[in-house]
Amino acid sequence: MIDVPANPFPYALDPEHTALVVIDMQRDFVEPGGFGETLGNDLSPVQEIVPTVAALMALFRRRQWPILHTRESHKPDLSDCPPAKRRRGNPALRIGEEGPMGRILVRGEPGNAIVEACAPMADEIVVDKPGKGMFYATDVDGILKARAITHLVFAGVTTEVCVQTSMREANDRGYECLLIEDATASYFPQFKAAALAMIRAQGAIVGWTTPLASLSRAIG
Amino acid sequence: MIDVPANPFPYALDPEHTALVVIDMQRDFVEPGGFGETLGNDLSPVQEIVPTVAALMALFRRRQWPILHTRESHKPDLSDCPPAKRRRGNPALRIGEEGPMGRILVRGEPGNAIVEACAPMADEIVVDKPGKGMFYATDVDGILKARAITHLVFAGVTTEVCVQTSMREANDRGYECLLIEDATASYFPQFKAAALAMIRAQGAIVGWTTPLASLSRAIG
Repeated sequence: MIDVPANPFPYALDPEHTALVVIDMQRDFVEPGGFGETLGNDLSPVQEIVPTVAALMALFRRRQWPILHTRESHKPDLSDCPPAKRRRGNPALRIGEEGPMGRILVRGEPGNAIVEACAPMADEIVVDKPGKGMFYATDVDGILKARAITHLVFAGVTTEVCVQTSMREANDRGYECLLIEDATASYFPQFKAAALAMIRAQGAIVGWTTPLASLSRAIG
Repeated sequence: MIDVPANPFPYALDPEHTALVVIDMQRDFVEPGGFGETLGNDLSPVQEIVPTVAALMALFRRRQWPILHTRESHKPDLSDCPPAKRRRGNPALRIGEEGPMGRILVRGEPGNAIVEACAPMADEIVVDKPGKGMFYATDVDGILKARAITHLVFAGVTTEVCVQTSMREANDRGYECLLIEDATASYFPQFKAAALAMIRAQGAIVGWTTPLASLSRAIG
């Protein structure tokens, strides 16, 4: 086990059984004209983490540890999109409608691709998920168990929505979760701060958090 | 449909297809000597909501609308408790150990009962859940779908842990969710406030929130 300095106390990383999970670093949420922007959000906090996420991925690739990427996306016929999700709020463009990068949150459209700096390599796992949580209506749990993964390092967007939801699901399923503080972002910096605080409260009730530099120093 | 004044905009409640979900109002989390206290928490914010949760339940009972209660609990042999969950943090008592109200978070023990003021009636649904989220390893989705429930009103504890996790799971599954602001509590008032803000952000990305008085006036 590798002791990683973390909040609220050191995280014991099991090098044989750890995967990196990169949540939804897709153009829809990071680039202008995507779903994130149509919801009225400022993209800059999300764009700022791209180099850090890329550096974290490089660290895992050097160690040849597995990487799993998720994309929030729906089938072209939207059969996996609950009507309640499509109706929600008042975005400039709804899920399935044509935007500057193709149909919003639809698989195979240009906007649904992961941003170039964080693009998956051929041997990495990519999971399309219809929900915010990566375990709902996906085979993520089976994929991880088939590889005997017990420890998950999390990065991606947005912290309090898809990252938090996926991490809470993983925690219920018994995975030991570590969130990389500077490799995750929200459109709302105060929500990122609150989500990190909630995750590590009550003795790491959901998991641990640490900056990339701490993880990097610990695993070399 | 009944329009309920809510944040961030009115919630359309479907009276034929709505259930109340009361999360984990069990002695373990609300009374002295339980798991909540062994984690080092101040119980008073959680105790303060008991009368409001009871009043919300009375409202649903008068309308004869269904109520589903959850309890976070494990089987006596702890076979449904991930080792990671049992190990986590440094509580005065771990899950399964003997406390003043019996074995911590174990089914059938005195501490696992719902507090008297919020006790279920014989025709109400009670679900034991091993996770924070009520959909993980339970039959909640089937129970709700069998009754054609599409709208969920949430109450209970704690806001940013079990309530938020269950509400995010419900939202992914297409339920329209309304959280009653004064019928939910956290050991940490700042986490309750942040969770409410996150839930209703971005056009009710997870759902709506409103005080009991607004719901009560709207449905009579």
